[in-house]
Amino acid sequence: MPRFALKIEYNGAPFAGWQRQADLPSVQGAVEAALARLEPGQHSIAAAGRTDTGVHALGQVAHCDLARHWDPFRLSEALNYHLKPDPVAVVACAAVPDDWHARFSALARHYLFRVVVRRAPLTHDDGLAWRVMQPLSLSAMQEGAAQLIGQHDFTTFRASGCQAKSPVKTLDRLEIEELDYPGGREFRFHLSARSFLHNQVRSFVGTLERVGAGAWAPEDVGTALAARDRAACGPVCPPHGLYLRAVDYPSDPFA
Amino acid sequence: MPRFALKIEYNGAPFAGWQRQADLPSVQGAVEAALARLEPGQHSIAAAGRTDTGVHALGQVAHCDLARHWDPFRLSEALNYHLKPDPVAVVACAAVPDDWHARFSALARHYLFRVVVRRAPLTHDDGLAWRVMQPLSLSAMQEGAAQLIGQHDFTTFRASGCQAKSPVKTLDRLEIEELDYPGGREFRFHLSARSFLHNQVRSFVGTLERVGAGAWAPEDVGTALAARDRAACGPVCPPHGLYLRAVDYPSDPFA
Repeated sequence: MPRFALKIEYNGAPFAGWQRQADLPSVQGAVEAALARLEPGQHSIAAAGRTDTGVHALGQVAHCDLARHWDPFRLSEALNYHLKPDPVAVVACAAVPDDWHARFSALARHYLFRVVVRRAPLTHDDGLAWRVMQPLSLSAMQEGAAQLIGQHDFTTFRASGCQAKSPVKTLDRLEIEELDYPGGREFRFHLSARSFLHNQVRSFVGTLERVGAGAWAPEDVGTALAARDRAACGPVCPPHGLYLRAVDYPSDPFA
Repeated sequence: MPRFALKIEYNGAPFAGWQRQADLPSVQGAVEAALARLEPGQHSIAAAGRTDTGVHALGQVAHCDLARHWDPFRLSEALNYHLKPDPVAVVACAAVPDDWHARFSALARHYLFRVVVRRAPLTHDDGLAWRVMQPLSLSAMQEGAAQLIGQHDFTTFRASGCQAKSPVKTLDRLEIEELDYPGGREFRFHLSARSFLHNQVRSFVGTLERVGAGAWAPEDVGTALAARDRAACGPVCPPHGLYLRAVDYPSDPFA
């Protein structure tokens, strides 16, 4: 069967995460339902990142197998037609070889986390960024973040239910950028790794927010990491500032 | 009575515009209702720009008169508390002299219009930008826009119901910026003038979109302007890409 890679953007708010569930709306379920409108029957698609409830994507990547040799542009148009009115859009589509796998062929995942510091509630970005009330120190958070770069046992920053075989991962990038924001400041956390543990990004950002607020010293991050103990983690931050931004493959299927 | 200037951000989607109306939700009505929770009675506030149905603001400015000498920070916090869950937020607040007027003291209004060119529907920016399906030429739109700069009789670009005394206005800035956008391109139109006619920005952008798409030649914009005839205008574009970005005063009350 012809295989297609799909680059998918979504607003995670109305979904109980990526993964299909029996009685809850999911992004995977929405895309599979749209596929069933094109080719009747059961569809089962695989994705690079199984995002949690409320987490967004700018560039989730999935693949599907279809009976017909669709023109990729027409396939994306047809899927977007059937995905309405869900906030899910196929932003790119490409034919890929049979052995190409959205999850197993992926070389790196890139996440973005948006934190907005201001007193006033968010209006246009409501549900699209985590609003924090107190000022945050960029340099303190950067100092804390630097201790997480590289290969480590990340047990401290891993959900208790995480199903990964090993807690040892290599974090390639954790950069924090500070921007102007109307009536406040925005901090964008950019994270990259071959793969992440369950809740790893939200555990990092929740902990670094404590550092930025001055409740933790920057070096407490290294102490927490070295503890290899979930109880040593800072608070896990809410999901709605988190975006799966992009996924890397040996060659970009959408290029 | 002490007078306060309020800088207000809102998502225009649920509102029938800024201006209070008997049976429809309005931003003015929402702010006045919040004021009535602080000091009972009828409140009537004035704003720099009376935005239309569905138009957003990043920096609308209004003023209100109150009986008590509120601390500005506490006033903004109290208003934001009572504005929930409406997507309206007071992002700055300042005490101003009795003769300071949000509308009549204003020296310039700055608008932003966001156009996103892509085939796929918008997810995070749904309702926050105008999606256009066909490619647009930046240089053609810039060439068209240049003909609108300066003092002109803008009858062509004015709603038939516009209540301004004169159609002659001076457009100080109409710059278009092209940015990357996931799966497409974004065009940001930046407009500044002392004041605008009703529907002027949406008439400009709707007309320039026709130029960008190649349906109009850039010089057709000048011809339409010279006609001083509403019928010569291109299609008025939808409101949901439009933002009242900022208002200038002789001195910034929020500085």
